[in-house]
Amino acid sequence: MFYILDILGTIAFAISGVLIAINKKMDLFGILIIAFVTAVGGGTLRDVLIGQTPVSWMQDITYTYVILLSSVLAIVFRSYINYLRTSLFLFDTIGIGLYTLVGIEKGVYAGLHPIICIALGTMTASFGGVLRDILCNEIPVIFRKEIYATACILGGMTYFLLRKLPMDSNLVFVLSGIVVITVRLLAVKFKIGLPTIYNKT
Amino acid sequence: MFYILDILGTIAFAISGVLIAINKKMDLFGILIIAFVTAVGGGTLRDVLIGQTPVSWMQDITYTYVILLSSVLAIVFRSYINYLRTSLFLFDTIGIGLYTLVGIEKGVYAGLHPIICIALGTMTASFGGVLRDILCNEIPVIFRKEIYATACILGGMTYFLLRKLPMDSNLVFVLSGIVVITVRLLAVKFKIGLPTIYNKT
Amino acid sequence: MFYILDILGTIAFAISGVLIAINKKMDLFGILIIAFVTAVGGGTLRDVLIGQTPVSWMQDITYTYVILLSSVLAIVFRSYINYLRTSLFLFDTIGIGLYTLVGIEKGVYAGLHPIICIALGTMTASFGGVLRDILCNEIPVIFRKEIYATACILGGMTYFLLRKLPMDSNLVFVLSGIVVITVRLLAVKFKIGLPTIYNKT
Repeated sequence: MFYILDILGTIAFAISGVLIAINKKMDLFGILIIAFVTAVGGGTLRDVLIGQTPVSWMQDITYTYVILLSSVLAIVFRSYINYLRTSLFLFDTIGIGLYTLVGIEKGVYAGLHPIICIALGTMTASFGGVLRDILCNEIPVIFRKEIYATACILGGMTYFLLRKLPMDSNLVFVLSGIVVITVRLLAVKFKIGLPTIYNKT
Repeated sequence: MFYILDILGTIAFAISGVLIAINKKMDLFGILIIAFVTAVGGGTLRDVLIGQTPVSWMQDITYTYVILLSSVLAIVFRSYINYLRTSLFLFDTIGIGLYTLVGIEKGVYAGLHPIICIALGTMTASFGGVLRDILCNEIPVIFRKEIYATACILGGMTYFLLRKLPMDSNLVFVLSGIVVITVRLLAVKFKIGLPTIYNKT
Repeated sequence: MFYILDILGTIAFAISGVLIAINKKMDLFGILIIAFVTAVGGGTLRDVLIGQTPVSWMQDITYTYVILLSSVLAIVFRSYINYLRTSLFLFDTIGIGLYTLVGIEKGVYAGLHPIICIALGTMTASFGGVLRDILCNEIPVIFRKEIYATACILGGMTYFLLRKLPMDSNLVFVLSGIVVITVRLLAVKFKIGLPTIYNKT
């Protein structure tokens, strides 16, 4: 079940990379790289920082196949992808929820402080998009517009709160993931964003 | 004592990140990330390259608290921060001196060549600022203007020269750090910079 | 023999960094950093991702000397470097061929899937140039113009095909490297590039 969600999240992340790379008029190889980096970038950073190497996507070839296949399909059917926009957004959001919790649990397993674990979870969910934007030479969208990371952080806080209760650990995982997903969906629906801090001087 | 200097350096680095992120009109989360990356980026690169993981800021939560607190204060009092410019510059310079020497000693401890150790020290002191500039989509300031890294390198050379003398190792550390700090202060005071190599062709 | 090729590749990569950094009007230090990053960036990423640390250039000081020396010479004789353009391109191409195969063999040694090994080889050969372009604030050239990575991938596929034959492993290495080099030379000679995927919408 988690594995299927993971694959759906990977597909959504890869396709978001494809779409941005096409807009930047990159060549076929460039598009595939951006798709790959967007999909695995967060988990790679997490694994490198906690020293769990070779990084995880290198140890399970399935991710590579999924990314290549969904990227090629996205390129071929790029004119029709608008019809899938809602599904993709949903997959993307599920991916974020799942990646956040996977990152948090890896941190817990490595014996790190809850705040560091939440940071790891947020990185896992968002660093792929940051890398995508840097490689496309733009200020990462996460720093400018969306309430993306806030959703991850709230979900992470939920995770550590629920863990104190006598609750099954899988349930904690699922409920916290649902918090991430719900916050993001609500934020996008009601166009809620964090305030920009303008420089008064 | 070193710990206090380390905290002061962390504060100065974090605030420099806050100020640049505000100028880029980032949102609250973006600002905190830039502050964090600026403060811990150098040490993180060093730890990853020599394989000392989980990286150091993950193992001592104090840094996280210090960065969050000083960033929030910097945001709240951003109109008044000009009055602190001199103190901040001093903290920043102390941070550079300290980070350089910490990086060098980690290299020595890992059994690396002195030149590599000096490179590690310079990275520790400067990579946070490089990351900050990349994330803000600018050519890193270190490549364009300041004699920043030269100070680190001269301090590193001092360290390896003094180590050959019969001198207490703490004293070597302190004296070399003072070299870094002095070179940077003099360079800024007298506006000394490395020559730009113009392309004659 | 491999060592000499490796040094030639390192020289070519370092000089390509120097030339771009000069065009960006960086100072002396910036130029050296860009040269260094271009030359060792690919191998560093590979080593970090598979967890072989301290990364390789830290363990053999020769690379550092070669990079510094060739960079300084490139800066001093920058007006004359056009006369060397053909040699440099050849060294660069040899470097790519060699780096690709070194990366692949490190992956094989770490027990990774052939596709992952080819990805590692391609990274080793190309990530230095990507970093160079990011630090100079440009969209990496590899994503836009050249058939650079395709050559690496074809060479990697050759490697795994030949390995199935009863053939000496050194010969497999050399033949696969020659495939990388030949593909690149032919692609540049006949101006072959991958198609750009324009957005029809």
